[in-house]
Amino acid sequence: MSGNQTAARRGLMLVLSSPSGAGKTTISRAVLEAERANGLSLSISATTRAKRPSEMAGVHYHFMSEREFLKKQKAGDFLEWAEVHGNYYATPREEVEQALSEGRDVLFDIDWQGASQIRKAAPEDMVSVFILPPDATSLRERLERRAEDDGATIKRRLTNARTEIAHWGEYDHVIVNHDLEVSVKEVLAILHASRTSAKRQTGLAADVAKIIADLEAME
Amino acid sequence: MSGNQTAARRGLMLVLSSPSGAGKTTISRAVLEAERANGLSLSISATTRAKRPSEMAGVHYHFMSEREFLKKQKAGDFLEWAEVHGNYYATPREEVEQALSEGRDVLFDIDWQGASQIRKAAPEDMVSVFILPPDATSLRERLERRAEDDGATIKRRLTNARTEIAHWGEYDHVIVNHDLEVSVKEVLAILHASRTSAKRQTGLAADVAKIIADLEAME
Repeated sequence: MSGNQTAARRGLMLVLSSPSGAGKTTISRAVLEAERANGLSLSISATTRAKRPSEMAGVHYHFMSEREFLKKQKAGDFLEWAEVHGNYYATPREEVEQALSEGRDVLFDIDWQGASQIRKAAPEDMVSVFILPPDATSLRERLERRAEDDGATIKRRLTNARTEIAHWGEYDHVIVNHDLEVSVKEVLAILHASRTSAKRQTGLAADVAKIIADLEAME
Repeated sequence: MSGNQTAARRGLMLVLSSPSGAGKTTISRAVLEAERANGLSLSISATTRAKRPSEMAGVHYHFMSEREFLKKQKAGDFLEWAEVHGNYYATPREEVEQALSEGRDVLFDIDWQGASQIRKAAPEDMVSVFILPPDATSLRERLERRAEDDGATIKRRLTNARTEIAHWGEYDHVIVNHDLEVSVKEVLAILHASRTSAKRQTGLAADVAKIIADLEAME
């Protein structure tokens, strides 16, 4: 999709939300893989929650103490922040702003609270996608397969899933994740389509003015 | 993209506009070809203009007399109508309404006047795409290659192109047609993305309510 030279444009924030276990992380990775050459990057959240054995600092999260987190929050360094499952999460503002202004898109893997704050702060820059599980049973099964979560965590995630899912209607797009490959294609289509948005191609007005002037000169 | 069973949804009107010679007709055909299996059909316009040798009645247009056209127009049988280059054009309402209510999408190859009327009549059902030529020279060259148009027609089409292009900002999406294959992919992405629109998936609310109720029963 990168063959059409397009007018200068501002990057967009592609926000993916879903309850834990609906496949969001897998979809995010596949979308990033497919679009890295086109400049898509993942927004790395800051968090105060404990690192899981499978996670790397600076790759999955910027892990920090509650004290450091609250200091940054107070300084206005976060685009959004939220408390989830008793921990703090946030999006550092600076790297996102820089990417958007250079025409690069940023992928967000965040919950409804974060999405809601970004929507309020920058509605024009945001394209939001909610990923639904096909049904409740498949959601529970995926959570149970995660060996690193204990029973109490699974139960809490099921309760939180209900809250998260209740916010589906606030999103621009909704995908029901029956088939992972199809879901990835759908998210890619949303990203590609959003890039052709008239209002997002900030260089178009000048390009069109030139075409019109040249046509006039030909008549 | 048809592998994800999705919730019941209302069809959408995918409107393509461009000046003559920008590649719209070729793009429309390719998009139709790719999406016919998914139920996409072309809205056949009614027109009072003379049939070209390469055209078939009922396939390219519903050709009719001015008298018949004005009678249907008066009866409210048209979704939109316009006078272009001294001829009348319109979209018969009934077949479009039926397709949308059955969840099938309809492709429109119409000018800015028609697009503007559809936008006013049914903004929620419409996704609009404006196709720009890369520059004025390529537009003129494509018009000159059409053997069936004479010099006066080409000159008039160039003048009309300016008027048409001036309306680009009224469209949801704008594609600059540098590369035909890329442009087709972009229109397909817009169609696929539009199908995942939250407000367009009319069956989603009920599906989500069931997931939430089932999750509650599991806790």
